[in-house]
Formats: sequence, C-alpha cells, structure tokens
Amino acid sequence: MSIKIQPEAIANLRGFELPERLGFGTVMAPVMFRARYEDGCWSSGELVPYAPLMLDPAAKVLHYAQSCFEGLKAYRNGSGAALFRPERNAARMQHSAERLCMPPVPESLFMEGVRTVTAYCANLIPANSGESLYLRPFLIGTQPDLSVTASSAYDFYVIASPSAAYHPGNMRLWIEREDSRAAVGGTGDSKVGGNYAASLQSIARLKERGYDQSLWLSPSNRQTVDELSGMNFFAVMDGVLHTPALNGSILEGVTRDSLLTLAREMDIEVHERDIDIDDLLALVRSGTCSEAFACGTAAIVSPISELGDDNGNYKLNSAPGPVAEKLRAALLDIQEGRSEDRFGWIQRVEAAES
Amino acid sequence: MSIKIQPEAIANLRGFELPERLGFGTVMAPVMFRARYEDGCWSSGELVPYAPLMLDPAAKVLHYAQSCFEGLKAYRNGSGAALFRPERNAARMQHSAERLCMPPVPESLFMEGVRTVTAYCANLIPANSGESLYLRPFLIGTQPDLSVTASSAYDFYVIASPSAAYHPGNMRLWIEREDSRAAVGGTGDSKVGGNYAASLQSIARLKERGYDQSLWLSPSNRQTVDELSGMNFFAVMDGVLHTPALNGSILEGVTRDSLLTLAREMDIEVHERDIDIDDLLALVRSGTCSEAFACGTAAIVSPISELGDDNGNYKLNSAPGPVAEKLRAALLDIQEGRSEDRFGWIQRVEAAES
Ligand SMILES: Cc1ncc(COP(=O)(O)O)c(C=O)c1O
Ligand SMILES: Cc1ncc(COP(=O)(O)O)c(C=O)c1O
Repeated sequence: MSIKIQPEAIANLRGFELPERLGFGTVMAPVMFRARYEDGCWSSGELVPYAPLMLDPAAKVLHYAQSCFEGLKAYRNGSGAALFRPERNAARMQHSAERLCMPPVPESLFMEGVRTVTAYCANLIPANSGESLYLRPFLIGTQPDLSVTASSAYDFYVIASPSAAYHPGNMRLWIEREDSRAAVGGTGDSKVGGNYAASLQSIARLKERGYDQSLWLSPSNRQTVDELSGMNFFAVMDGVLHTPALNGSILEGVTRDSLLTLAREMDIEVHERDIDIDDLLALVRSGTCSEAFACGTAAIVSPISELGDDNGNYKLNSAPGPVAEKLRAALLDIQEGRSEDRFGWIQRVEAAES
Repeated sequence: MSIKIQPEAIANLRGFELPERLGFGTVMAPVMFRARYEDGCWSSGELVPYAPLMLDPAAKVLHYAQSCFEGLKAYRNGSGAALFRPERNAARMQHSAERLCMPPVPESLFMEGVRTVTAYCANLIPANSGESLYLRPFLIGTQPDLSVTASSAYDFYVIASPSAAYHPGNMRLWIEREDSRAAVGGTGDSKVGGNYAASLQSIARLKERGYDQSLWLSPSNRQTVDELSGMNFFAVMDGVLHTPALNGSILEGVTRDSLLTLAREMDIEVHERDIDIDDLLALVRSGTCSEAFACGTAAIVSPISELGDDNGNYKLNSAPGPVAEKLRAALLDIQEGRSEDRFGWIQRVEAAES
C-alpha cells in the first residue's frame, strides 16, 4: 500500500475519545479515506481527518443524485479486526457505479480504503458481541455542471462509525401497495441514493400507523414480495426457508447470501422464488408460515412479528422463531470468531500504530 | 424583504466579467442565495458569494439522495429582468420536497431567493433573443446521520448561470424499452435527483448509437409515451396537438402547460391522453403524424426529426414543423416582451444596485 497518511489524521485519532453511548451510525470515527477520480485516472488514496467536504454548488451529486454507497462491518478480533466478505461489497459497489455511469472503484482501491480505515480505527471498535465498526464507502459525482450527463470527476470516501449492536426488535411490517422504491428497468438492484429517497415517504407514513418497516412489493407486478428498505426478506413454511429470487429490483444482500449458505449447510431446504403476498398472508393466517425475518449487515437477522395493510394484521406465531435464531447464531459465531471460518468469509486486519 | 446581502457578494459581482462564450448552465454567476432549515424553522435568506458548500461526509443528500431542484429563466427586460411563471416552479418544488419528506420551501422564500439573485445578476443577463439567466433553486438534506430517515436539517440555495440560447437542433429520439426513469408509485412527477441518475445509462447508450435523447415509456405499461429526460413530448396528427396526460410518472412542465394554453388560444385542438408508442410509430410512417417536438424551460420548443428503436427508424415529415414553430414564436414573444402578457405570466424584477 502506497497510501498517504496525513499527520492530522493521526493527531485526530490520538485525541479521540469514544463516547459511552454509541448508537448505530451516529458517532463518526475521526478519520476517513479519500481517493479522487479525474481525467480517467484514480489518485492514490489518503487517510485524512474526518472533516466537511468542499463541494461546488453545481456538483452533479447534489442535483442528479449521482452517488452510490456500501455498508459493511469490522468486528473486533484479538488485537486487530475482522472484515466480513468485503470483496462482495467491492463487487456490488462496482455494479451500482456502472448503473449510474460512474467509474467502478477498482477492487484493490476499495479494499485499501476499507482496510486502512479499519486498521487505524481498530482500537475504536467496541468489544461486546454485536458491536462493530460500521464502514460506509461511498462514491459521488463532483463535476460542477448543470447538464444531465455523467460527471467527469468523482470522489471515493470510506467513513466509519463505531457502533452498538443494532436491534430493531420484533418488527411490524407495513405492506406497501402504493409506493415503489425502484422501477422495472430501474435501479433497485443497485445501492444508489435515489432508491432510499423514494422510500422515505412510505417509512414516514407507516411510522404514523405504528409500524416499523415497509415491505416492498415487486414493481413489475405489485403482487410478489421484494424486500425491506434496507434488509432482505425470509419466511419459514413447514420448515422450508423461502426468500424472493433476485429479480432485478431486489438488492443482492451479502447477509442474504450468507444465510442461504448456512441454511444449506444445516440441511434446511431453501427456495429462492417469487412469493405472492396474498398467498403469504393466507399461510401466515393458517399457521403454515410460522416465522418470518429480515436480514442485512446492520441488523444481521431480525424477527418479523406482524404483517399489516389496510385489510388487517397478520401475526406470526413465533418471533423470533427457531430458524431465525439458529441462523443468526451461526452467522454471528463466524463473524465474531467463535466458530471456524469454513467458507473463507473473514479477512483479518492488523491494527495500525497511531 | 429583510434579506442580508453579504459585502463579499457585492465585491464578487463588481469583479465579475462575463466570458465571451457562455454555453448553457456552465458559467456560474458569482453570487448565490442561501437559507437554512433547522429545528422546524427557516432562517432568513442571504445573498452570499458563490463558493463551495461545506457538507458533512455523512450528510443525507450524499447517501440517500434527499434533494430536489427547479429550473427557470430570467430574460433581460429593459433595465431589469423578467421571470416566467416562477410561482409554478415554487409550487412544483413544494410537491417534490413533500415526496421526499423534506420541508417545502415557502413560496415567499422561494420567490425571495429567485428575485434576489435575478436582481443582483440583472446586468449579467445576455441580451440576444434566446439568451437568459438560468436559475437553479435546490434543496438538500444536510443532517450527518447514516440512518435511512428524513434529514432534520436542510439548505435551500438558488444559483444562476448566464446562458446562451440552448438549441439541441433536430433531435433523434431513442425509444427506451428497457430502462425506466421512475417507478409506478415512484418519484416521476417530482423533480428529484434520483430520476436523473436513473436516466444516465440510457442517455449513454443512445449517444453511442447516434441518438440525442431517450423517449421514456410509462413504467406502468411500458407501452405509452411519457416524456424525455428533461422535456415533455408533443405530436401533431392531422392538425391536432397530442401530449401524454399527466399520469403520476410524468413531470408537469411549465412549458407544457404554457404551450397548451397558447395552442387553445390559437384554436388548435388539443388532446391530453395516453399515446401508445406503436400506434404513434404507425402514424409517423403513414404520414398522419406530421410533426413531433419536445418542450422545456431550457430548450423551449425543440423539433424531433426521428424516432428509433431496435426495430428501425421512423422519420418525421417536417422538423421543425409549422405548429412547433408557431408555438415557439408565440411563447418566446411573451417571454421576451415582444407581445402582450395576456395571461399574467411575466414577473418584472428591477436590477439591484451593486
Ligand atoms: C435495499 C437493501 N436490501 C438489502 C440489504 C441487505 O444487504 P446486506 O446484507 O449486504 O447488508 C440492504 C443493506 O445493505 C439494502 O439497503
Ligand atoms: C423530466 C422533465 N420533464 C419535463 C421538463 C420540462 O419542464 P419545464 O417546462 O417546467 O422546464 C423537465 C425540465 O424541467 C424535466 O426535467
């Protein structure tokens, strides 16, 4: 790594004290990684102090949402840290960037950014189970120009947040039958800002009704289940695990893929398929669908206790259910180093001296 | 107006020289208007120097695209300037803001921003026909927080660009049958960043094929015409003017509305309706559809010479056609003060002393 470490970044780390109460994604580490793209080339990366970005008021990201991001965690691991499948995030960020005509961040640069921030922040990672350093790589178009064309210049950053465990508790989902978070032929399978902006209205409405999260339906039929605003969806029916197949509008979650692998290892039958929402509700009512849960980097595995819409509420028999509990434990045991890394999912990062 | 004028803004204006070649939306005026929203209240507005924004790296706009914008023009008008129907832009920006759970900018604040920038930049407005000051109000979520929820803090800006006439020439449109710019139940009828990010891939693909603009189809059926990436669509068939009806995924253009009014005044029959793309192509081929054009603030009225997709090309008989030419002239005559403002569309702004 030929990366430049700014002395002010080291000074910031020395002067930093971790607050007692962390929350999730609210306390920011005092350093960040930055690389710039211009004239077709990436600059070399730098570790710099966490500080406001200077953006031209006409920068493309501010007007045309040319931005994509990732989310992954570093867990405390002995004297250093452990990253979980970061190469999947690197690949997904390349996919997102290409969808918005942005230059894909090379995997080596992505890894350098994530590993550098993790190494320098290793001592800031809280050590209890479920706690972690939440890493947020993001890429933005910075060219100041009001025409609706791709930016010629980009900034890639990795910021990080020492975070407590994120426990949404038993979630009540609102079945969103009006709004869509993404279009057919849109950006649903990319992690880009516009999908999240489009979902805010649904989230605000359901909170007023006492629900926790939207359950999004497929924009192509508005009848089969897609996912939550930041998590993938699973249901257990007669002991078989079902999850929506990747259809172009669902984000391909790293946690989703990991749970499918772990389930198969446990000899749980797995179906990736279209799940009709009305069939699902009938099976919840009859008890055939005994549990449902959502998964993602932040919340890992989170039980769903209820599905609701204007027609009524459908309670799940067990939340958390036994399958969710087993999968959550198996995943967290690998992530936190209590069980063997038998799938090659863990990347160790040594703490850097600062 | 109790607005604060920073002395540096005045100094910037005094030192500014308009370059010879302007282009459209590339030369930025040296001042901008700013107001901030926090704790449920808007600050009073300020005229400040045009300068980079300082944004926290975790600001919501950078990750979740919580941003909306407007585009309108000020024309040179005697010693001052003329704004064209700015209250429509104020209302549309409120609609866009609400869709993304942002506080709507009060009409009075929007107008204050637009009028102040216009007044102080009046002497920068080029004076030939078609030239103008392009105004770009925008609103962004600034709270530094990685949770997918609405920002608690916002900045409203008005930036401006002295601009040459924008003449896209005779446009060749590519019928986009794969991608969508917005979803059913999405954000298509709002002027929000995500719509434009989603359209970049189509624009890049069609440019490679020698086309100029995408013609977007409705996401609900992928069969009827919606609009272009930044303009509304019109077609003339047997002397009757047809344009897609507002359906939730189309942006309601101020130019579209103005042309409909002018057409009715000219006793041209007007139909706002669903236009099936394959019917349209057949009518172009048979010659029944004799002209088509697009309209928007930037390009005013721009002729379409050809529609194409994988199945072939369909040439329009006349581009520009007589209806487009008549409507363009009627609109520009009002905007530039050559004909009477019989619909109350013009707002005069006196030049401010600087
Ligand atoms: C829309 C969406 N779906 C699913 C996920 C889960 O993905 P992962 O497991 O990679 O965190 C996320 C979060 O990253 C998301 O934003
Ligand atoms: C998607 C879209 N459609 C149509 C228009 C035309 O609207 P207006 O006539 O208000 O400029 C614009 C531009 O503002 C636009 O961005």
